[in-house]
Amino acid sequence: MARTTGSDGEKTEAAVREAAVSLIARLGYEAMSMRQLAAEVGVQAAALYRYFPTKQDLLFTLMREHMEGLIEAWDAARPAAADPATRLAAYVENHIAFHIERRHSTHVSNMELRSLSHDRLTQILRMRTAYEKELRVILRDGAEAGVFDVEDTGLTAMALIQMMTGVIVWFRPGERLSISEVTATYLSMTMRLVGAAASTGEQRTL
Amino acid sequence: MARTTGSDGEKTEAAVREAAVSLIARLGYEAMSMRQLAAEVGVQAAALYRYFPTKQDLLFTLMREHMEGLIEAWDAARPAAADPATRLAAYVENHIAFHIERRHSTHVSNMELRSLSHDRLTQILRMRTAYEKELRVILRDGAEAGVFDVEDTGLTAMALIQMMTGVIVWFRPGERLSISEVTATYLSMTMRLVGAAASTGEQRTL
Repeated sequence: MARTTGSDGEKTEAAVREAAVSLIARLGYEAMSMRQLAAEVGVQAAALYRYFPTKQDLLFTLMREHMEGLIEAWDAARPAAADPATRLAAYVENHIAFHIERRHSTHVSNMELRSLSHDRLTQILRMRTAYEKELRVILRDGAEAGVFDVEDTGLTAMALIQMMTGVIVWFRPGERLSISEVTATYLSMTMRLVGAAASTGEQRTL
Repeated sequence: MARTTGSDGEKTEAAVREAAVSLIARLGYEAMSMRQLAAEVGVQAAALYRYFPTKQDLLFTLMREHMEGLIEAWDAARPAAADPATRLAAYVENHIAFHIERRHSTHVSNMELRSLSHDRLTQILRMRTAYEKELRVILRDGAEAGVFDVEDTGLTAMALIQMMTGVIVWFRPGERLSISEVTATYLSMTMRLVGAAASTGEQRTL
């Protein structure tokens, strides 16, 4: 996420964002002060306000960039004109890969919606809904084609997203399982959960 | 959760706990002050310290009681000497029913582990592990009996728990679905995810 090239201003802004994600994940947004954040980055508090006029501008930027990144990653990963099972597999792989690399940012994005103003909350929720809709469409296409057996596409989409995002709660790199082993198991659970033909999930390789 | 009988002291303590769960869910533990909590309850800050000598004693009490309540609810709901599918269904129903009624408390228990001291974190994690182990044992028994098809009981248990607890993120009573409709759909997804014979999940009624 941090930019490694660019002007000093861009480097400072990237450092602020990175330190803010980490501080908010540790303390919560309400408890973090701009003064504390400035000290963490090693700049004067006044310098922060050049990039983020208010503390909430900072929070909103972090959340918007998180969602933009997720949507861009899915746009790049989305297979063109593929069958529903291949599209679902791509969605699962992209979702897990994106979130496992952004544990703190995911934490902040899920926890601190409570601290956004109404208008900004609406903007973030609109982006989330658009992203989740991609999954609902895949599930619906699969159900209509008779390759998935899904009772309620809305509930199934929420269940899958929460199951997948939950990986960040317990997964730590370098422990029992690799990211690709975890992803393979989640993919297989997903395929069973949506009632895909057993062979679809089990013969797929990552 | 709130006690409706008992001495004035017990009533105050219950009011403190209830207000604390709500404030911490809204602001985060680090941002909540004991002064603010006292004002919410309508007592002097000094009165709080009679019940909870430190702010962390309060947080720990909330989390310990949440886990004790969950384990007690499961002890009461656990079917005696039943087949794995019946036990799994009971676990799912109890887990969803317990958390859907305690949205803020669940939120606090999941989010504020970061604010516990090492010893207290260890105590809470030990209770969580014991509760999660109940699910792993059901999955393992089902796999050994050949009625479930589970690749990794640890991962499957985590996936199911996060999928089920995630209900509190989006479920609101009085909207499109009732609690029993949501539970029935989650039960059916669970049975498919663990590869239970299709009839087991679909013929079951709540």
